[in-house]
Amino acid sequence: MSRIARAACVGGGVIGGGWIARFLLAGIDVGVFDPHPEAERIVAEVVANAERAYGLLTGAPLPPRGTLTFCRTLEEAVAEADWIQESVPERLDLKRSVLAKIDAAARPDALIGSSTSGLLPSDLQEGLHHPGRVFVAHPYNPVYLLPLVEIVGGRQTAPETVAAAIDRLEAIGMKGVPIAREIEAFVGDRLLEALWREALWLIHDDICTVETLDDVIRYSFGLRWAQMGLFQTYRIAGGEAGMRHFLAQFGPCLQWPWTKLTDVVDLDDALVEKIGRQSDEQAGGRSIRELERIRDENLVGILQALKGGDGGRGWGAGKLLKDFEHRLWRSAGPVETPRDATQPLRLLETRVASAWVDYNGHMTEHRYLQVFGDTTDALLRLVGVDMAYIEAGRSYYTVESHIRHLGEATIGQSLLTTTQVIAADDKRLHVFHRMFDAATGSLLATGEHMLLHVDTKAGRSVPAPPEVRSKVAALAGLHAGLPRPDGVGRHVGQPAGSRAAADEGL
Amino acid sequence: MSRIARAACVGGGVIGGGWIARFLLAGIDVGVFDPHPEAERIVAEVVANAERAYGLLTGAPLPPRGTLTFCRTLEEAVAEADWIQESVPERLDLKRSVLAKIDAAARPDALIGSSTSGLLPSDLQEGLHHPGRVFVAHPYNPVYLLPLVEIVGGRQTAPETVAAAIDRLEAIGMKGVPIAREIEAFVGDRLLEALWREALWLIHDDICTVETLDDVIRYSFGLRWAQMGLFQTYRIAGGEAGMRHFLAQFGPCLQWPWTKLTDVVDLDDALVEKIGRQSDEQAGGRSIRELERIRDENLVGILQALKGGDGGRGWGAGKLLKDFEHRLWRSAGPVETPRDATQPLRLLETRVASAWVDYNGHMTEHRYLQVFGDTTDALLRLVGVDMAYIEAGRSYYTVESHIRHLGEATIGQSLLTTTQVIAADDKRLHVFHRMFDAATGSLLATGEHMLLHVDTKAGRSVPAPPEVRSKVAALAGLHAGLPRPDGVGRHVGQPAGSRAAADEGL
Repeated sequence: MSRIARAACVGGGVIGGGWIARFLLAGIDVGVFDPHPEAERIVAEVVANAERAYGLLTGAPLPPRGTLTFCRTLEEAVAEADWIQESVPERLDLKRSVLAKIDAAARPDALIGSSTSGLLPSDLQEGLHHPGRVFVAHPYNPVYLLPLVEIVGGRQTAPETVAAAIDRLEAIGMKGVPIAREIEAFVGDRLLEALWREALWLIHDDICTVETLDDVIRYSFGLRWAQMGLFQTYRIAGGEAGMRHFLAQFGPCLQWPWTKLTDVVDLDDALVEKIGRQSDEQAGGRSIRELERIRDENLVGILQALKGGDGGRGWGAGKLLKDFEHRLWRSAGPVETPRDATQPLRLLETRVASAWVDYNGHMTEHRYLQVFGDTTDALLRLVGVDMAYIEAGRSYYTVESHIRHLGEATIGQSLLTTTQVIAADDKRLHVFHRMFDAATGSLLATGEHMLLHVDTKAGRSVPAPPEVRSKVAALAGLHAGLPRPDGVGRHVGQPAGSRAAADEGL
Repeated sequence: MSRIARAACVGGGVIGGGWIARFLLAGIDVGVFDPHPEAERIVAEVVANAERAYGLLTGAPLPPRGTLTFCRTLEEAVAEADWIQESVPERLDLKRSVLAKIDAAARPDALIGSSTSGLLPSDLQEGLHHPGRVFVAHPYNPVYLLPLVEIVGGRQTAPETVAAAIDRLEAIGMKGVPIAREIEAFVGDRLLEALWREALWLIHDDICTVETLDDVIRYSFGLRWAQMGLFQTYRIAGGEAGMRHFLAQFGPCLQWPWTKLTDVVDLDDALVEKIGRQSDEQAGGRSIRELERIRDENLVGILQALKGGDGGRGWGAGKLLKDFEHRLWRSAGPVETPRDATQPLRLLETRVASAWVDYNGHMTEHRYLQVFGDTTDALLRLVGVDMAYIEAGRSYYTVESHIRHLGEATIGQSLLTTTQVIAADDKRLHVFHRMFDAATGSLLATGEHMLLHVDTKAGRSVPAPPEVRSKVAALAGLHAGLPRPDGVGRHVGQPAGSRAAADEGL
């Protein structure tokens, strides 16, 4: 799998901004050219949304964020890039003139993708000097969360360009799917267009409102399609008799007068107003920003749910996320020891996700342990116990934990944790975590944990190897002079000691 | 909200079986009539799938499962029912003759729904004696998980019938949506049909394979549609300019030659074989049963993810689940004290869900605490601390926990927990949970917890009221004679005691 070294985005609207966010959060520097006076504001908003969503999406170590540069000229933006994404408005003449400029200024080996949702790649690449590297890379909004990119080559696109594009997208967690033959609107928008036409008729004819129509989708086949598409869903519907049986049974329906698709609805003022009014009612006063936030959190939750699919192996978009995280863990460089390692180590910052709270908005009990577990993982990476180490068959397992709840964490709250090494020997690692409200510094919970170094294949404890032991011992030595935290060695129900709670602030 | 007292299902195929499972798991007795020789086997399989899915879906207390009765005659099945669901094959003559028999045998006040996916309710109710109670109730497969039911009345359907049907469906966790005017195929299948026609052309013309087409859906708009439908998604796409702007901008596309919908594909042998072959490749050897299992687990995960949506308030199908669970908790009768309360109480059985495991299939650390937390909740209900109690502003909060990991739980494993009350006073409740492998009885983990009775609004501890204290004290008294468990009072890192681990087996 190859990595994009530097990206350029020409056009920074909602789609261009989504690409920019994808690249930046994957650690790729991005040069942007967009003469629109609001471009910087729009891009900043999309990137902020993306960062918020990624904070909820994954606990894997994201690489340092790429550098974003707004360039004064298109040439400056694209000169050093090896992936150039064009996302200017959907007009053939405009796109062709922009692509001609990119063609002239780009490195000969750069990949040049167009975000067009409908124009043919053969039309876009006509007259270019190096058309073989030009293709359609059609994403879906929000680009930073939805993984799909339709990859469509034109008559002059080199086959290796399509393969290279799919390969580079995989490295940033996206799913490039090759469309075998170019047609207007490709595959996704063809399907959407068909459904959209029918939907407009249903509203026009007062069969239902836009809210009812949306409910019909999201309480039924929308849930199916998030994980399997159309054909695999119908394969199941066909039962043991299979897909051919299903087609034989339902094929005749196609001839029934079930749709009005042979006609195109007239989007006159009355229909526009009807849909606008019903849509306002459906939104119930929620702003677009609020709907975007809800959408992104839902998408995060769905992606995480699918990550647990297929018996924990990951399914569909969740498998993609899982693979992406796996690579992040593997490629995460060694964690740098914090400058002042004589103090408890600050290892984790996170935010209370909506899936973590009860109906009152309070973080549920076991999510405290989840955050402490993530803190332990960060500590282990610091001493060299990373994905490669674990895959080689060694790890530390938690054998015992003690948690004190001292305050309440609520939805959206920013948290940070620190770790103090209490003691360590060849096999054992005894740590004490504190969880703070990141804004106020007040202590919310503590976690005391005993970890044991194990041979995961043999299923028994073994001494840690010297390179891990020396790092563990060094940390233990640095922390030896710290006051013993108030909660250490405490058992459940032990009366509060006479010691002042000197350690109870950040 | 009214409850269905007794349901009848006429027709027990995949859809009928799904209805039967929905009713049974909601605690409703069901009479079934289906002369098909395989009906009992098919229904048993669907109900087994549904029970497996519900075991993962919710920790709320499901009511005792309803009684399933296969009846020798239609009349016997429907006689006492107040909801009758017809799910026989999709032929107007057959459905009319079945509905005539139901009409003659049913109670006059029974609601009679048809599962038809395309026939008009006016045609179905023609000639019946009591047509006002007959309507279309069109569900989606799998009926036990997908909440949608399109409710369509015919010319003779009484308006109060539609309202009553939606009300009764809500009580069993389903979303009845009223379709304002009857048309063939209603709303959902209209939309599906439009997309399906277009999809068949794309395969026919070799634009892509069925796998690519499914990927296009499930990596993009399928994820959007699981939570918002079409119109609300486009409202966001329109940005701050809103829905009317979106329509003005994208309306003209409708006239573009983007679809082949004016023509109907010929599903000849060659196309059926092509789709069948591509579908086989996509399935990669997975059986229909395996795909069903994967689908159900994915749906469960998506529903649970959406339950956390909108800042923890629940969104779409997740809000429906949340409301359903809320009602289950509220209506859960008092937990009966186990017959032998002198032993640790068996309060919880559960199974390790796919979302609970790491990439090796082992249950992650914090899920142990989740299971112990659920055990605590079950204990609290036993002493009268139920949803109504908590809503009134009192509860027990966990202030301190100690967990020992003694074995590993893996995906799909059945677990059971027991609880021993160690001590209790006016405010405090000190408990010790054990988690066992339900099959072998081996001890996997223990959890020792201190709970404090609190006034949740004032945010401070207060004595429990007498009715709770007396139940807590009674349990503490019954358990006073039990041996003190080996792990009690242990702190992290304490050397193993000299006591024999006499309590370490089930």
